[in-house]
Amino acid sequence: MPETIEDDSVGIVETQIIHFSEALMLECEKTLAEYDIAYETYGELNADASNAILICHALSGDQHAAGYHSMDDKKPGWWDSAIGPGKAIDTNRFFVVSINNLGGCKGSSGPNTINPETGAFWGPDFPIVTVKDWVKCQYRFMQSLNIEHWCAVIGGSLGGMQVLQWAIDYPDLIKHAVVIAAAPKLSAQNIAFNEVARQSIMSDPDFCDGHYLAKETVPRRGLMLARMLGHITYLSDDAMRDKFGRELREGKLNFGFDVDFQVESYLRYQGRSFVDRFDANTYLLMTKTLDYFDPASEYGDELAQALNKTNAQFLVISFTSDWRFAPERSREITRALLEAEKRVSHIEIDANQGHDAFLIPIPHYMNVFGSYMKNVAEDLS
Amino acid sequence: MPETIEDDSVGIVETQIIHFSEALMLECEKTLAEYDIAYETYGELNADASNAILICHALSGDQHAAGYHSMDDKKPGWWDSAIGPGKAIDTNRFFVVSINNLGGCKGSSGPNTINPETGAFWGPDFPIVTVKDWVKCQYRFMQSLNIEHWCAVIGGSLGGMQVLQWAIDYPDLIKHAVVIAAAPKLSAQNIAFNEVARQSIMSDPDFCDGHYLAKETVPRRGLMLARMLGHITYLSDDAMRDKFGRELREGKLNFGFDVDFQVESYLRYQGRSFVDRFDANTYLLMTKTLDYFDPASEYGDELAQALNKTNAQFLVISFTSDWRFAPERSREITRALLEAEKRVSHIEIDANQGHDAFLIPIPHYMNVFGSYMKNVAEDLS
Repeated sequence: MPETIEDDSVGIVETQIIHFSEALMLECEKTLAEYDIAYETYGELNADASNAILICHALSGDQHAAGYHSMDDKKPGWWDSAIGPGKAIDTNRFFVVSINNLGGCKGSSGPNTINPETGAFWGPDFPIVTVKDWVKCQYRFMQSLNIEHWCAVIGGSLGGMQVLQWAIDYPDLIKHAVVIAAAPKLSAQNIAFNEVARQSIMSDPDFCDGHYLAKETVPRRGLMLARMLGHITYLSDDAMRDKFGRELREGKLNFGFDVDFQVESYLRYQGRSFVDRFDANTYLLMTKTLDYFDPASEYGDELAQALNKTNAQFLVISFTSDWRFAPERSREITRALLEAEKRVSHIEIDANQGHDAFLIPIPHYMNVFGSYMKNVAEDLS
Repeated sequence: MPETIEDDSVGIVETQIIHFSEALMLECEKTLAEYDIAYETYGELNADASNAILICHALSGDQHAAGYHSMDDKKPGWWDSAIGPGKAIDTNRFFVVSINNLGGCKGSSGPNTINPETGAFWGPDFPIVTVKDWVKCQYRFMQSLNIEHWCAVIGGSLGGMQVLQWAIDYPDLIKHAVVIAAAPKLSAQNIAFNEVARQSIMSDPDFCDGHYLAKETVPRRGLMLARMLGHITYLSDDAMRDKFGRELREGKLNFGFDVDFQVESYLRYQGRSFVDRFDANTYLLMTKTLDYFDPASEYGDELAQALNKTNAQFLVISFTSDWRFAPERSREITRALLEAEKRVSHIEIDANQGHDAFLIPIPHYMNVFGSYMKNVAEDLS
């Protein structure tokens, strides 16, 4: 391993792509005749294929969860703090699989890829996919790797929702379910924030009704606004106070509409840099996937009923200052699991970083998560 | 009074305009050579001019606080629930004055009025005004009406900030200060939301660098987004759940980007209707006024010091579910007043309507407010 990469990194990794030529029927009743799935793996699959873990990504995540794509990479994958040799998800013990969900923009079929039937960008015509669709797609993917069951399915935020759906739809195929900073469904306020983000993108004249790629443009302003807004909901009020307070960028008020406060500068930077790495149609699609998630709705709005058949053992983790998916939303999940008489551990981490905490290696969080995963690994041998 | 108007309404009212030809030096060090102030009054000034109350409006408010402009008006003024004969601010006892703040868009000099020096719309060249500027301007206005002191200055949200500034800048001229759902200064999160709203407006191509009126257009999309976002912060998560939950507009998911949930429909409606009644440059300006408010900054960041000279008696009101200016922010004000050994009553109203609660005639709120004001009225006679 190159000397500038940390010892506990998975090192240099590569995204691979599998093509699926079997048609996939989606919840919206549209069918994808064929599609690609981009993925990465870390660690080695053991002889009896019993140590495979699926990582599910959140709204703006992708398959690149750990390691570096090249020595020039400035940053590792989005969950490098949790995945690697000796880390909470220990790649010395587990074979870790991370895929870019359908509709994503990092190599899996999605709005920024070519629709094989038309030869043009899918753009706004890519169907709206649901968490259930993703799980079905991940199930097929699992079969293609000859994995018969997941030792664990793990995810935070929208990723945690996929974990729940796995436990519901394939109750015998996952041994452990780790649901972090998630919710059993979005609240009206959650949907409202998503709607403002969507309107930001769709009202940008450069959105061109979603056909911006064909027109060689990008709805930069709209996507930037959506990300700025998202970012506020990822941080807690406390975290923002600690990080920025009312600090002025130039030490004085400008009496104009340029940046006065550091927090404004930070948000503009976050918005701008996101535009360079994410697709606006994918953002729209993922927010709808979030809005639509409500697995209990098929079970008379009884989450316990939905989870009734699962054989998985659960770890539910929430963070005190998360107001996007507040601890109470995690407790709803835990209560349903207890009602369904499932095995569940719930830990609420005292953290002031808001929803973003799930991506941060907070010692107490990593210790709890790591020791749970150590037990999972020990059950393997 | 026309028979279709309620008995406890102030009835048909009219906005008046006073022109001030004495130059006004602003905190930004620019000077307005002359300016107009639009205002309304309700009730009668008594013989010794001791019963005058100033109402201060919030971000999107104006001088039309109570009554109707015509028999065709569908809605009364924005605080009609609190102002009128027999109401909390009883117009049988008090002479109530409500002005449109400088920079507003309802008749006072502001971005949508003509700059007398150029003969063109002020647009983005209207100076950024501060709460301190407004209070100075309200002081001059008070002199023009021959009122020597306010029996009470009352306001909610940004209005409450003006009340605080009155108590600081003219400590002998206000007898009672009623500060509702306010904060001693904005948090980083508050500023962040304002910044996203501003960027929404300024990035709309129809904003034309603020010169949209001269170009006979309006940044509709940007102002709509700003209002949608604002609206989320005015309502509590609970209020949204009670009002909308996850109710679908058409009873089913559409698998498209049109409205699925009722809350989306509501927000779009709120956004659209705001565009027809508010000026985008004024919105920008008012958000900066909010961001800049920090009266303690001139007093070594000691709010108690800032309030040290005031002779006013305070009523501070906060609402449990308000997360824009949470109850804790009101408690900061109350603690500073106690530290400065001022007379203060603080009541926290159990209400699930969020920040908007201050505009809603919640019985407990109106009872407390009304009985405080009854005592104020009795002191007059």
